[in-house]
Amino acid sequence: MTSVVDAPSSTFTSPARGLICRACSAEYPLAAQHACYECFGPLEVAYDEAALARVTRAQIEAGPQNIWRYAALLPAGQDPATRVTLNPGMTPLVPAPALAAALGIQAPLFIKDDSQNPTHSFKDRVVSVALTAAKELGFNRFSCASTGNLANSVAAHAARAGVPSIVFIPADLEQGKIITTAVYGGELVAIEGSYDDVNRLCSELVETDEFEDTAFVNVNVRPFYAEGSKTLGYEVAEQLGWRIPAQVVIPMASGELLTKVDKAFSELVEIGLVEAPEGGWTVFGAQSEGCNPIAVALHADTDVITPVKPTGIAKSLNIGDPAAGPYAIEAVRRTGGWMDYANDDEIRDGIRLLAETTGVFAETAGGTTVAVLKKLVASGKLDPTKETVVYNTGEGLKTLDAVAGQVGPTHTIKPSLKGAREAGLLG
Amino acid sequence: MTSVVDAPSSTFTSPARGLICRACSAEYPLAAQHACYECFGPLEVAYDEAALARVTRAQIEAGPQNIWRYAALLPAGQDPATRVTLNPGMTPLVPAPALAAALGIQAPLFIKDDSQNPTHSFKDRVVSVALTAAKELGFNRFSCASTGNLANSVAAHAARAGVPSIVFIPADLEQGKIITTAVYGGELVAIEGSYDDVNRLCSELVETDEFEDTAFVNVNVRPFYAEGSKTLGYEVAEQLGWRIPAQVVIPMASGELLTKVDKAFSELVEIGLVEAPEGGWTVFGAQSEGCNPIAVALHADTDVITPVKPTGIAKSLNIGDPAAGPYAIEAVRRTGGWMDYANDDEIRDGIRLLAETTGVFAETAGGTTVAVLKKLVASGKLDPTKETVVYNTGEGLKTLDAVAGQVGPTHTIKPSLKGAREAGLLG
Repeated sequence: MTSVVDAPSSTFTSPARGLICRACSAEYPLAAQHACYECFGPLEVAYDEAALARVTRAQIEAGPQNIWRYAALLPAGQDPATRVTLNPGMTPLVPAPALAAALGIQAPLFIKDDSQNPTHSFKDRVVSVALTAAKELGFNRFSCASTGNLANSVAAHAARAGVPSIVFIPADLEQGKIITTAVYGGELVAIEGSYDDVNRLCSELVETDEFEDTAFVNVNVRPFYAEGSKTLGYEVAEQLGWRIPAQVVIPMASGELLTKVDKAFSELVEIGLVEAPEGGWTVFGAQSEGCNPIAVALHADTDVITPVKPTGIAKSLNIGDPAAGPYAIEAVRRTGGWMDYANDDEIRDGIRLLAETTGVFAETAGGTTVAVLKKLVASGKLDPTKETVVYNTGEGLKTLDAVAGQVGPTHTIKPSLKGAREAGLLG
Repeated sequence: MTSVVDAPSSTFTSPARGLICRACSAEYPLAAQHACYECFGPLEVAYDEAALARVTRAQIEAGPQNIWRYAALLPAGQDPATRVTLNPGMTPLVPAPALAAALGIQAPLFIKDDSQNPTHSFKDRVVSVALTAAKELGFNRFSCASTGNLANSVAAHAARAGVPSIVFIPADLEQGKIITTAVYGGELVAIEGSYDDVNRLCSELVETDEFEDTAFVNVNVRPFYAEGSKTLGYEVAEQLGWRIPAQVVIPMASGELLTKVDKAFSELVEIGLVEAPEGGWTVFGAQSEGCNPIAVALHADTDVITPVKPTGIAKSLNIGDPAAGPYAIEAVRRTGGWMDYANDDEIRDGIRLLAETTGVFAETAGGTTVAVLKKLVASGKLDPTKETVVYNTGEGLKTLDAVAGQVGPTHTIKPSLKGAREAGLLG
């Protein structure tokens, strides 16, 4: 069980009215607290529903071209001057007709391409919200436990803000993710262990005196952090002309992204910004075979997640003990969806298929999601006649090793017409 | 001298009225032609000035959040349905107060961060315009000679559009740039030679029957391609509230980007979208020491560029025989600017300084530009009391090798509080 942390609190001018336990519904004031004092359940942000209900489409559309257009639906950052941010979001919703054709999908298919964020993953969204809250709460050092993308984002945000950072990663991360974090000049601690070891150590460090002033975005300010993922739901709905798609396919690490996209859709309906689609929406989850505890639990028709020791190339999804797993299962069951997982070869094929048909070069997480999309169509779990949005959460440049052995020059020639002719380029 | 190419022509519904020779001012209809039949000088797009003068700020501001908001100032793509594009542009103009302080600049300093384009370099702008024109001109295969970023962009655009591509690169390119191109599934031809060899071969191939239907973005449709760079001038002016900055620092490969940003500023003033700034604007150019023919010519007070055999880590700038060099020198002289160059160590330091102070991780071209900015301040060539915009044209993830040996984890520890204590993280 995660630990309960005391930390400085502050007054927010935000629609958030407090923190609420997802397990027992106990409520707490807004503060750097992530677990319930009563039952140790995880906390999430609770909102003043009247405040949310006042938000209009026009208000959002008049906002900036980034996540902060949704500030009135977020727990922090209402005043632009308070934001710690690279201004992520409003990433492209890419029509993918050639991918749809390749997979036998007859309805519109879109890629929500979150590789187009400032540090090239969806983590910029959650980090911007978490660090903005952290600053408002009085923290003066930024940190995280990371499988790589989060480390990149925290280090870059800290550099932009001029705040010291110390981030924790597994020592075996992809080189691209290590360098991209280290270049920002903060402290970077490589842990000889798995992501789950890293996460455990951070949960211990956060309780030490030396880390009292340190905001771990996914530990002590996690409730704020998690809310940033809602913007991936809001944006898709807005980009579709204020509609919710019939089906969404979402990669799962902790499972939190999936639950928050679902939450975002629910909020939009509740506060009247979109109409509930006929037949509702259906949420699908994607994992890799090397780390599939949530999907396996769903397949076994249980809520109990059995932690695994992750393997495989989809390192950004390698959370063996996924905190939001049960909530992801709940969302998938409630909406009539499904989960599946893909092995490393299928993930590589997914990266290439997505690139060849859409021009989007995804990291392994995106390859996983496309590979699972393919399986969901093949198994009949996903309806190929309904509009579908697939989330790509990261950038292929960060996981080049995954495809390095598979793609390369199709010809290598001498610099002459003779060379071109010998290579068959001139008929 | 480059060759003259005949190719299919078409009718554009664009403000462009034809092509004009930059050397002798001979005019031609809009077509896939890049050199003057009279004098073999390079051609550029000429516009109907009355059409340009009708463009308003409101019209632009009502457009999409990408380069196509400036379609009325571009030679192709006025009809959205005709565009071959990943919708690049409207990249962040990042305030850089910490970088300014580090360099002794007392006025506002901004990074125009074009690493935030779809394939993470400014090349998406020129490729979108070139391929849109190419499609209108009837070409059905897309190609280029590239130092890497252009290859990435052409291959990705072709994949999105469902058009075959064949791109040509030097065989010694960075691995990141090779994979990122190859993953899109088009033909990728590695040439055993320099970029200048690649470019020469493409100039020969374009005249063969087998390549008659192939648009080489930077050869036979080069005049259209080059116009895409103007958007980097338009955007900066718009993002500053329709003002032109006093000083800009721009990396140079062919030199074309520099000339087109200057041209964009001139156009904006001529058509009345911005007021000419008091004292005008000053343009500075940045090269690497391993490939500095334009800067060396300026320093020697000549217009004659002596080609060099490029070396050094700034491979995306390694054009030893820069086509637009004389025009870049003209723009820098006319505006009272200067050029300088940086060696590999200075480039690496530039990458790190930019990352640490702004959160922007640039490729070697961006490191070059920051390193040259530093020199320009130190030498007094750049006025530290005037507003300055520095162009970062590419993404650090594509040139990880440049800093791989320099940055990494600051600590490597066992996954325990004991490990953290031994590493000094707990005081």
